Amino acid sequence: MAKKAGVGVGTVSRAVNNTGYVALETRKKIERAMKELNYTPNELARNLYHKRTGIVAVLVPTVAHPFFSEFLAGVEAELHERGYKTMICSTNKEKNYEVEYLQMLKRHIVDGVITGVHSLNIQEYQNIDKPIVALDRYLGEKIPVVAVDHQAGGRMAAEELFHSGCRSVIQFSQAKQIEAPAQARHAAFEEYLVKRKVKVYSYELERNRFEIEYYLNICKELVEKYSDVDGIFGTDLPVMTYMKAAMSAGKRIPEDLKVVAYDGTKIIEAVYPSITVVKQPIEKLAKEASRLIVNKIEGKEYINRTVELKTELIKGNSTLS
Amino acid sequence: MAKKAGVGVGTVSRAVNNTGYVALETRKKIERAMKELNYTPNELARNLYHKRTGIVAVLVPTVAHPFFSEFLAGVEAELHERGYKTMICSTNKEKNYEVEYLQMLKRHIVDGVITGVHSLNIQEYQNIDKPIVALDRYLGEKIPVVAVDHQAGGRMAAEELFHSGCRSVIQFSQAKQIEAPAQARHAAFEEYLVKRKVKVYSYELERNRFEIEYYLNICKELVEKYSDVDGIFGTDLPVMTYMKAAMSAGKRIPEDLKVVAYDGTKIIEAVYPSITVVKQPIEKLAKEASRLIVNKIEGKEYINRTVELKTELIKGNSTLS
Repeated sequence: MAKKAGVGVGTVSRAVNNTGYVALETRKKIERAMKELNYTPNELARNLYHKRTGIVAVLVPTVAHPFFSEFLAGVEAELHERGYKTMICSTNKEKNYEVEYLQMLKRHIVDGVITGVHSLNIQEYQNIDKPIVALDRYLGEKIPVVAVDHQAGGRMAAEELFHSGCRSVIQFSQAKQIEAPAQARHAAFEEYLVKRKVKVYSYELERNRFEIEYYLNICKELVEKYSDVDGIFGTDLPVMTYMKAAMSAGKRIPEDLKVVAYDGTKIIEAVYPSITVVKQPIEKLAKEASRLIVNKIEGKEYINRTVELKTELIKGNSTLS
Repeated sequence: MAKKAGVGVGTVSRAVNNTGYVALETRKKIERAMKELNYTPNELARNLYHKRTGIVAVLVPTVAHPFFSEFLAGVEAELHERGYKTMICSTNKEKNYEVEYLQMLKRHIVDGVITGVHSLNIQEYQNIDKPIVALDRYLGEKIPVVAVDHQAGGRMAAEELFHSGCRSVIQFSQAKQIEAPAQARHAAFEEYLVKRKVKVYSYELERNRFEIEYYLNICKELVEKYSDVDGIFGTDLPVMTYMKAAMSAGKRIPEDLKVVAYDGTKIIEAVYPSITVVKQPIEKLAKEASRLIVNKIEGKEYINRTVELKTELIKGNSTLS
């Protein structure tokens, strides 16, 4: 092979293993020779040569969740289209996992990371000079964010409940320690309703808790404690669970309780009665995140900013407006 | 480096690139020298050296589905425990994707494949002499299968509906062209009930269709067409969707309609009224599949057989027995 390329064996070794300087012209010669001899023993060698693996890691708290699994499905489809493979990295509440997954960038296991988790501090992301894109999270100047306009989304939900006649509502909110665009939703929701003299109880969910059992315990308590509540707002799973607790206690929807769910994942379509949702365009979020990460990996120009998409109100039978 | 190892540069190149014979003793020397010199430039080079990537591909029809996303979450957790990473490969109905993903084995992109899809013929798997494990599918002698005892599961469901007083039931069944352990469930269900003079309509779902919209159209039709039906059986999503269609048409559960769902994914816990399920131990299935694939990759002894796990009936308020 070295002979074919007209260079020394040591040079080939340096080029293939990336262990020392090899002039661009020489690299090209070696690449040509490799091709002619059908030399590349496997994808690993080729990746080593190009310093790419063609793999993007997607960090989510858990895959077993309608929002994250739909997002992941969308990312995988878009990355596949663009010639990349998708590695799943569930952090399962473990800070250490997030660190470990980010290290994969340095260790050349993946070419880029799309992160939708919230366990590490922003600082730890600042020290990484590799392609990263964030879903619904601020990670500093250098890292683009893909998210919906949560403020508008929160307002849509509030309007819908207000026009359905609600006087006292519960909203499930994200843990306050998370700095995320989604926080704007809770503020906008509360502001709209409080201005109109509607009582708002904000129930702050623990960070990284997505189990229905956890939601069920909370919802049973809330249904008992706040018997005057006539409206509920939150993401799909806590809202479905609250509906179950309320119906089990004899409440009728929408007569006694109005419901708006945020996200509008596909599973919601299988629920009776049909739920009014503020729908996030999950597939579009996934596409945008994938596009941005591939552009970063391939060194293409892009404007480094928050990509903000729109939510949409889709009426079901759980509200009256 | 060659100097440190006391071997020629060409030998190092052959060893690292795996392009020619290098004696085991010499390989060890080189490995030692690499370690001492902290030579390995990155994971890619190390993987190349060991002919491993540490990645397992998991093939599913779609990630955006409660059963597959829970299975995937379980596989990822177990593989992580064992030092492997998880690549997701959704086939999205495309035969070509399945071929492409299997080729990753030959191209050394992944070390093994866990396949839970049903688009290719068995023959195409026979020609691959690499680590493969199947979820709920027969792929010939060489490939271990992880599945539940579907026959017992189907019978459990039939018993429950019979003892709840059903006289006429619908079961949603998998497309018949799929050769899978799950087919035994449909046969056992039907056999038990027909023997006891219960009418059974088996509705065969199209292969690789998992959209709720698809289910909704079918269910609306079935509810209209078979007004005498007093029992329903199928996997979680079609059953949830049927319940929605039936309740929308004024049917009460369990008074007018008894329901048993198969799989018992977590989402079911958020549904009202609570559904009686035949629960698959999804996490255990995932653990077993992961254990088998790692053993295969690492060349460990294992008995090459179907791993059959048990289902469990968990009563909700959708049956009366």
